[in-house]
Amino acid sequence: MNLETRIREKLKGQRFMHHIGFEITKIEEGRVEGEMPLHEHTKQQLDFLHGGVTLTVSDIVMGFAALTKTPEPHKVVTAELKLSFLNPGIGDRIRAVGITLKSGSKLHFCEAEVYVYHQGKETLIAKSSSTMAII
Amino acid sequence: MNLETRIREKLKGQRFMHHIGFEITKIEEGRVEGEMPLHEHTKQQLDFLHGGVTLTVSDIVMGFAALTKTPEPHKVVTAELKLSFLNPGIGDRIRAVGITLKSGSKLHFCEAEVYVYHQGKETLIAKSSSTMAII
Amino acid sequence: MNLETRIREKLKGQRFMHHIGFEITKIEEGRVEGEMPLHEHTKQQLDFLHGGVTLTVSDIVMGFAALTKTPEPHKVVTAELKLSFLNPGIGDRIRAVGITLKSGSKLHFCEAEVYVYHQGKETLIAKSSSTMAII
Amino acid sequence: MNLETRIREKLKGQRFMHHIGFEITKIEEGRVEGEMPLHEHTKQQLDFLHGGVTLTVSDIVMGFAALTKTPEPHKVVTAELKLSFLNPGIGDRIRAVGITLKSGSKLHFCEAEVYVYHQGKETLIAKSSSTMAII
Repeated sequence: MNLETRIREKLKGQRFMHHIGFEITKIEEGRVEGEMPLHEHTKQQLDFLHGGVTLTVSDIVMGFAALTKTPEPHKVVTAELKLSFLNPGIGDRIRAVGITLKSGSKLHFCEAEVYVYHQGKETLIAKSSSTMAII
Repeated sequence: MNLETRIREKLKGQRFMHHIGFEITKIEEGRVEGEMPLHEHTKQQLDFLHGGVTLTVSDIVMGFAALTKTPEPHKVVTAELKLSFLNPGIGDRIRAVGITLKSGSKLHFCEAEVYVYHQGKETLIAKSSSTMAII
Repeated sequence: MNLETRIREKLKGQRFMHHIGFEITKIEEGRVEGEMPLHEHTKQQLDFLHGGVTLTVSDIVMGFAALTKTPEPHKVVTAELKLSFLNPGIGDRIRAVGITLKSGSKLHFCEAEVYVYHQGKETLIAKSSSTMAII
Repeated sequence: MNLETRIREKLKGQRFMHHIGFEITKIEEGRVEGEMPLHEHTKQQLDFLHGGVTLTVSDIVMGFAALTKTPEPHKVVTAELKLSFLNPGIGDRIRAVGITLKSGSKLHFCEAEVYVYHQGKETLIAKSSSTMAII
């Protein structure tokens, strides 16, 4: 089973990811990317994208980027995640990219960037880092 | 308008919070608490609570705890948030508590704890810290 | 060899800790405390305590708190550390307390608080969290 | 007074930076770099570079990178800093690079990388992010 098929299999169980409407669009070794449209249900009271969505999609792309570097039957869980909100999320669509900065046999260190598309322009709205534990 | 009424007014606009099913149960100055049942849609592929939910509810209770310390018409936005996943989220219900550790005129420093209820027992599953910017 | 003797043995090799003038004063299972006077060499250009000192002593008390929960011959290394600077460090002396929030067989999650003494009053100036990896 | 002269003036007051032996080597708008030799006094009990040094030099290069983006007479203080320890610090010399990822009128978001030189090879040992508050 190739890398993409293996990851796609696991994505089926990501019920919260499906619930919010995020989809993985690219899977490479050490790099995973996804997108979602920004509907009404993803907003907070200032009409910006809710930080919880930004945090969630960052966790997802980093977790799956880590999984591409983890031999079966091992799994990965997020030990910790930090995210900086650089710009408000105003737009139609977001794109999230997760990479593995350093892979190990017990831990992976990952990073993610989230971009928003608005009126034909893409803006970086969040940058995050995480420690992923191999179990 | 008292503190609780003011916060309740703003909670109406929290569309992502309503989408996932989280509800604020207690509002005091510097402390906000909320709860949600763990349905199928909050899970990931290992059948644990999705980290995105834990991150989201932590951001919400810290943001509103910060808001209780912020005079009108100012608002707060999350500048950054870090969360440690201490235990897997397995259970029927979660409870999140956010507090302001230090309030200032430009920044508030907050912390949150998330607990899961399982078979009559409550377990701390996550601890987080954040910097909230007053705008 | 008891816990305190074991930790004291390892403290001898902490050359950077000795270089800055920090000393461990209390060692219990899951909790380590230390102190240092604030000399000229610990300051930055605004005459406050340098953030590097606050970060360093936080790393030390969390690392040794983690070590008290780690069976020999295992060691611990810091995987990541986050610190919030709550108040400026102005005073004569600091005290740092590190605890293990959650201990595991592969990772420990720790927290630390740093206090400054000034004119007979103690103020919390920093709060931090870390992931410690057992090797 | 040009940018470099202004920053060099403030560096004189960095007593803790001088105490540990770190020197700023490059100053550009939004980017500051420094180096230091690894002496005995920078080590911990496993003979690796002490995490406190890595944290300190990261804080310094991010703080000064932020200062290059801050108009006089404003100053910057670190609100929070997170650092991931990617590889053990074994070598003769370190180099730290700090950049501003996003500059604002109240906050700057910065990142830093620390490299170690060992037997003619340079390795990334740490990556960090911080929120700098303008005062």
